[in-house]
Amino acid sequence: MAVNLAAPDRMSLLPVAGVDLGFAYAGIRKFKRNDVMLMRLAPGARVAGVFTQNAFAAAPVQVCRQHLAESEWIRALVVNAGNANCGTGEAGLFAARRTCEAVARGLGCQVAEVLPFSTGVILEDLPVERIEAALPDCISTLAPAHWAEAAEAIMTTDTVSKAISCSLELGGVSVTVTGMAKGVGMLQPNMATMLAFICTDAGVSRPILQRMVREVADESFNRVTVDGDTSTNDSFVLIATGAAAAPEIVAATDVGYAALKRAVSHVAIALAQSIARDGEGATKFITIKVESATSAEEAVRVAKSIAHSPLVKTAFFASDPNLGRLIMAIGNAGVAGLDTSHVDLYLGDVKVIDRGGRAAGYREEDGARVMKPAEIGLRVDLGRGDGSATVWTCDFSYDYVKINAEYRT
Amino acid sequence: MAVNLAAPDRMSLLPVAGVDLGFAYAGIRKFKRNDVMLMRLAPGARVAGVFTQNAFAAAPVQVCRQHLAESEWIRALVVNAGNANCGTGEAGLFAARRTCEAVARGLGCQVAEVLPFSTGVILEDLPVERIEAALPDCISTLAPAHWAEAAEAIMTTDTVSKAISCSLELGGVSVTVTGMAKGVGMLQPNMATMLAFICTDAGVSRPILQRMVREVADESFNRVTVDGDTSTNDSFVLIATGAAAAPEIVAATDVGYAALKRAVSHVAIALAQSIARDGEGATKFITIKVESATSAEEAVRVAKSIAHSPLVKTAFFASDPNLGRLIMAIGNAGVAGLDTSHVDLYLGDVKVIDRGGRAAGYREEDGARVMKPAEIGLRVDLGRGDGSATVWTCDFSYDYVKINAEYRT
Repeated sequence: MAVNLAAPDRMSLLPVAGVDLGFAYAGIRKFKRNDVMLMRLAPGARVAGVFTQNAFAAAPVQVCRQHLAESEWIRALVVNAGNANCGTGEAGLFAARRTCEAVARGLGCQVAEVLPFSTGVILEDLPVERIEAALPDCISTLAPAHWAEAAEAIMTTDTVSKAISCSLELGGVSVTVTGMAKGVGMLQPNMATMLAFICTDAGVSRPILQRMVREVADESFNRVTVDGDTSTNDSFVLIATGAAAAPEIVAATDVGYAALKRAVSHVAIALAQSIARDGEGATKFITIKVESATSAEEAVRVAKSIAHSPLVKTAFFASDPNLGRLIMAIGNAGVAGLDTSHVDLYLGDVKVIDRGGRAAGYREEDGARVMKPAEIGLRVDLGRGDGSATVWTCDFSYDYVKINAEYRT
Repeated sequence: MAVNLAAPDRMSLLPVAGVDLGFAYAGIRKFKRNDVMLMRLAPGARVAGVFTQNAFAAAPVQVCRQHLAESEWIRALVVNAGNANCGTGEAGLFAARRTCEAVARGLGCQVAEVLPFSTGVILEDLPVERIEAALPDCISTLAPAHWAEAAEAIMTTDTVSKAISCSLELGGVSVTVTGMAKGVGMLQPNMATMLAFICTDAGVSRPILQRMVREVADESFNRVTVDGDTSTNDSFVLIATGAAAAPEIVAATDVGYAALKRAVSHVAIALAQSIARDGEGATKFITIKVESATSAEEAVRVAKSIAHSPLVKTAFFASDPNLGRLIMAIGNAGVAGLDTSHVDLYLGDVKVIDRGGRAAGYREEDGARVMKPAEIGLRVDLGRGDGSATVWTCDFSYDYVKINAEYRT
């Protein structure tokens, strides 16, 4: 059960000029549900992406990197759920390229203008012929309005689909940003991967788009964690079709850069949070803010040390204001020269740690009260600088063990 | 239930000349069980230690470091279970020093010749007057034969006590090494800490003893992990009384250094393994060996990436040969330039990954067979150098969540 997360309201998802979405059932997933998604981009669309740092990067990730390096333009993205095409060696690379070839034939573009994505079981061969067989259906369903169907077609064990839109004005022109994502653990019960695709009809030059995708990733998807594991297939792709008549953004100093980045971040953060809300076995959604660090990077390190600690996560599950585990996790973050006598900690609005020790007025029942709701806020003040950061995570429940231990037994 | 671990056979625990052990019930633990342990050392004993890297180092750890720096000789160690004296600020330091004062008065030594250790709940004041009241009992029970009772008195939520002995010849003289430890998670349900004390009647100069304690820690306690969390009170102390007539070891090149280190490592590794076997909720004991890394440090990093992954640990619990999670964890270790096409992986004697992909002859039932027993061996060959290392861990079960979520609810 996702924490305060419903499938997106279909009417709220705004089409993006220059982006058509199609879908089909290829029979790769165990259960009969659409499992192939095709995104067609109008000529002139710019595409930039960030990909997993895992050394076992899956075949489609390797092909994406290569096609983005070789090709000035990208005309299509193809995504399959049910098989990650990872740990599959040369045959896997061949299968990913063959998928791109089929899409290029169907849409009349170059092979290197197609980006492939896969999510699902690892170490099993991709049944590429099933994707080929499903492509005509994907092409026949291509339409700008199919965001909800597309977001559903990329799900694996997600309990709800994840998509959101917003719009803004750039140089007097209305511009749309719509994104979708999937993922519920960094690595699922044998089902890998977070995938996110955000499209806008604003115009952005490619180097500036690449800069924006990195900056946005750092403050959204890189700040969400379910179990600390990083999948072999993680991908976040940002697409700017330029189909709206807004002035093209060609420098980070352009007036439109900050405005567009704010809108893209808004979509990315909402999608990232939805991944933690739909985390495996999650019963709580937890926002961890670290302030007064020497840098944002240091703040992230402390926040993730808290977010990754199994002892902290099980305490959140139990609604237990277990202060000892929290200070242990802060002390464990590897912050050089941390003076613990400057550290304050708040659970919700309750100050629980004051200058490294239990706050004088703190009563256990106040801590228990703020730990009870499904949404919990945590704030750490390190008392040593101006850096701050926020990380989102979920708790660690019996169901996490159940989902991950019993998946194949 | 510990995995293949029984309490030590009392008759197998060899007294160490120059070491007397006493114990008492001070009423700090919730349940009536001895909770204070006193170790008296004969004049001339050398002591060296390594302590937690957690920034919230507890008051007794701070006092230990100070007394070891100030004092040439150490005459006593005092340990209480039930309260960690951590996050307790100036009052905590005062309490730790007051404990040392009471011991110094009782034994007739200097305050700085006493090392204090605490393990138990965090962020609560140490009831030092209860320790003072229990000290006469500790002193009256002092005897060389009390290793088993001492190992029991330092337990918190350990399900069995942990102690082991061995002996060796140094320069024709028989020398004894006996150690004890406690700890079942790096941080317990609110009960902190791994503590380990190893004593020998060999003679070792202090700088050489300090070198040995670091080297031994690196290949024993630093290679065991239950949940990846590091307690605020972790301490490992090595004591050489010199009471046996063996020639004193004053250089790492001395013939006796390697022999004694081997014996101390043997004891330390057995104690370290017993911590993983008694890990919270453990149903499996897992040995992870990484070979052909560029360095031992790199091998440890890969082994710990596997050992810390909640997805891998839940798969072990389920006896599930989940190869995808294993390669994910290897790829996630942050090894620069890892060529995954050189990576082999064995579960027990079964080769499951061959050059980065599923081994040709691998059948799922063979993987399932080796994952079934309570003891599982994993071997990774990175195919890039001569470094190797072994790490021990346990699985992640429903009971881990139960123990950690329900401790206070």
